[in-house]
Amino acid sequence: MKELFSVVTVEEARELISGVLPDSWLPAEEVELLNAFGRRLASDIYAPEDLPPFSRSSVDGYAVRARDTFGATESMPGFLNVSGEVEMGQAARLEMQAGGAVWIPTGGMLPPGADAAVMVEHTEDVGGGLITVHRPVTVGENIISRGEDCRAGQLVLAEDARLRPAEIGLLAGLGFTRVRVAALARVGIISTGDEIVPPGESPAAGQIRDVNTYALAAQVSESGGLPVCYGVVKDAASELARVLDKALAETDLVLISGGSSVGVRDMTAEVLAQGKPGVLFHGIAIRPGKPTLGALIDGRPVIGLPGHPASAMVVFKALVAPLLAWGSYSLARAKAEFPVQAILTQSLSSGPGREDYVRVKLVEEGDNILAVPVLGKSGLVSTLVEADGMLRIPLSKEGLNGGSPVKVSRL
Amino acid sequence: MKELFSVVTVEEARELISGVLPDSWLPAEEVELLNAFGRRLASDIYAPEDLPPFSRSSVDGYAVRARDTFGATESMPGFLNVSGEVEMGQAARLEMQAGGAVWIPTGGMLPPGADAAVMVEHTEDVGGGLITVHRPVTVGENIISRGEDCRAGQLVLAEDARLRPAEIGLLAGLGFTRVRVAALARVGIISTGDEIVPPGESPAAGQIRDVNTYALAAQVSESGGLPVCYGVVKDAASELARVLDKALAETDLVLISGGSSVGVRDMTAEVLAQGKPGVLFHGIAIRPGKPTLGALIDGRPVIGLPGHPASAMVVFKALVAPLLAWGSYSLARAKAEFPVQAILTQSLSSGPGREDYVRVKLVEEGDNILAVPVLGKSGLVSTLVEADGMLRIPLSKEGLNGGSPVKVSRL
Repeated sequence: MKELFSVVTVEEARELISGVLPDSWLPAEEVELLNAFGRRLASDIYAPEDLPPFSRSSVDGYAVRARDTFGATESMPGFLNVSGEVEMGQAARLEMQAGGAVWIPTGGMLPPGADAAVMVEHTEDVGGGLITVHRPVTVGENIISRGEDCRAGQLVLAEDARLRPAEIGLLAGLGFTRVRVAALARVGIISTGDEIVPPGESPAAGQIRDVNTYALAAQVSESGGLPVCYGVVKDAASELARVLDKALAETDLVLISGGSSVGVRDMTAEVLAQGKPGVLFHGIAIRPGKPTLGALIDGRPVIGLPGHPASAMVVFKALVAPLLAWGSYSLARAKAEFPVQAILTQSLSSGPGREDYVRVKLVEEGDNILAVPVLGKSGLVSTLVEADGMLRIPLSKEGLNGGSPVKVSRL
Repeated sequence: MKELFSVVTVEEARELISGVLPDSWLPAEEVELLNAFGRRLASDIYAPEDLPPFSRSSVDGYAVRARDTFGATESMPGFLNVSGEVEMGQAARLEMQAGGAVWIPTGGMLPPGADAAVMVEHTEDVGGGLITVHRPVTVGENIISRGEDCRAGQLVLAEDARLRPAEIGLLAGLGFTRVRVAALARVGIISTGDEIVPPGESPAAGQIRDVNTYALAAQVSESGGLPVCYGVVKDAASELARVLDKALAETDLVLISGGSSVGVRDMTAEVLAQGKPGVLFHGIAIRPGKPTLGALIDGRPVIGLPGHPASAMVVFKALVAPLLAWGSYSLARAKAEFPVQAILTQSLSSGPGREDYVRVKLVEEGDNILAVPVLGKSGLVSTLVEADGMLRIPLSKEGLNGGSPVKVSRL
């Protein structure tokens, strides 16, 4: 089996998977706007109307014709006739007269003919229906004009835009209560291994508790996916095939973790080879994480991850997270978008033709951030707990020099 | 009312609130480990046992006594007697003999007397129960020793540790299926204003749709809180008091947004003054966002936010997000932790004794990231949609020069 497949690079592995993914893999869905935070738009959004739908005052004060205030100063104030007031939430009915003013609260609708507002602080009520104005205003000052936020028919948000609080607010302002967004991927997680018991059980001699299901489920959440856990499957091909079938029926992508030993790797490969089109690659040029399997079965990616927790988590970040990221603006994506600029404290070597992922601690020193490698076996979980981030030594480099600037993705 | 309170700084406002918060404000809670991602530990965690609980091989190969391989080379291999094999998930019963080897799979339990493992790739089965070893191993090589991840009794995670995928995995490995974490704050959101209608309704002349409820709910989610929306309350003190009572009974912190006009601000202040101990501050030295009210009622903070969406969102980030952040490692916190280092493209002025929050677009230019201010009225939502981040001009500065380095919190 293994001999049929050569080791591929991480980039090739990503392309092998995305190249065969059917268009229907994650169909868009409609969600309530209140639940749409962090999602990505599945279509362009055009403004159905002007926002705001009428010109509004952005201060408490008086609606005026700007030209009536020109030249007004503290010592030579202008005088205006107050002809009434605008009521909040009501249409402004009073037409502005030359030399007139209409009391207006913040957010009130500007009366026809008015083109600016004077802050109440810059006026004085001198009685007899008159106010003095101590500062001039220009056309448009202290008001938000009709359509100033957006104009009817304008493209306000493009497909794939991430829905942050501001975007959610804008959509609410335009009257959208539901939006079409990219679906979140449901990710099935299967742990394998005769030695693995669930965390709630006491392991007998030779057994250890399942770390990967839990760590991977958290990574799925962090990456904007929805984890579905299928528990621990003992090393038996028929049982793995049965659970995999169930997971493929219920989720969009399946992770099979564990099976680091040659026999179990072969078993997983055998089960995956029975699907259509089956295995895409067997082994990727990455450290840690080389013994990784990729397959497509019934239109869904299945990734066989190494059993060592650190290896499984590195491969998740490199290969699985990018598949999930486009559906949502996740914590993982936020961290990846602007990596931390740091200075590497020691030289690191890497093999040629391989991507190395090195865990680092980040330490602030004056204005600099230092990246201190956390070296340790990939079977240990505690080294990942110690690490603040991870840096990648690309295929093309055989190492990094101590003192060189590096970009660290936070963990 | 207003005259009783002087304008406070953002820092003072934060202290006024946190200084009066009862210890019982957000009690810790126990959650399933599978749902604990992103939360913060409410107590120290000690390892109940060694992890791993026995020494394990990290390769497929042979368990050996390292000293029996010393001096082995390709041309002068060592010979070892294979006395049996370790079965996955089973106790290793065979005692190692001098010059012996036991077949062991990755993750298998090291037999008593063995202190290293030889990778199968560095051996050859020469028949007759003999293998040749072509490379020496040192003590501990290719194995994970009992307790190497952590030792029984050791402090593995301290109170307040954020539960990332690695921490979740470590807790699973140690047998924890539930953990005590800081509770997430439930945040009540009330919108006020006679001119405000829900997004699903068509506004009449003079009315606009509710932006703040939606934008604030998304900010609460982003900051790791749980939003609870109470809809739009028209400007009537009795109605506001009724809805506020309900929100105080059901949530941990209440946001009242809107009411930018003097009359409505006074109404909100009046309602808050009826609670015990009532209003803490009325106005903060921030732009945008000055007309912000803070109160404590029945042990819960109530924040009266300005009505302009951009102002409300800035005050949320400055004042409310820090109150929510300690309960969870949220998207907002991740973004705040390592701000983007950028170069300001134009000079900005600020008033003395005031914090200014300026929205910026981030533009990559060669190796630099430029922060381009997005200037616009705080009543506009679209300027926030355009912005990638926000920078703060602190109290002590009266501005920032174009070309100076700035730290930008992403939006």
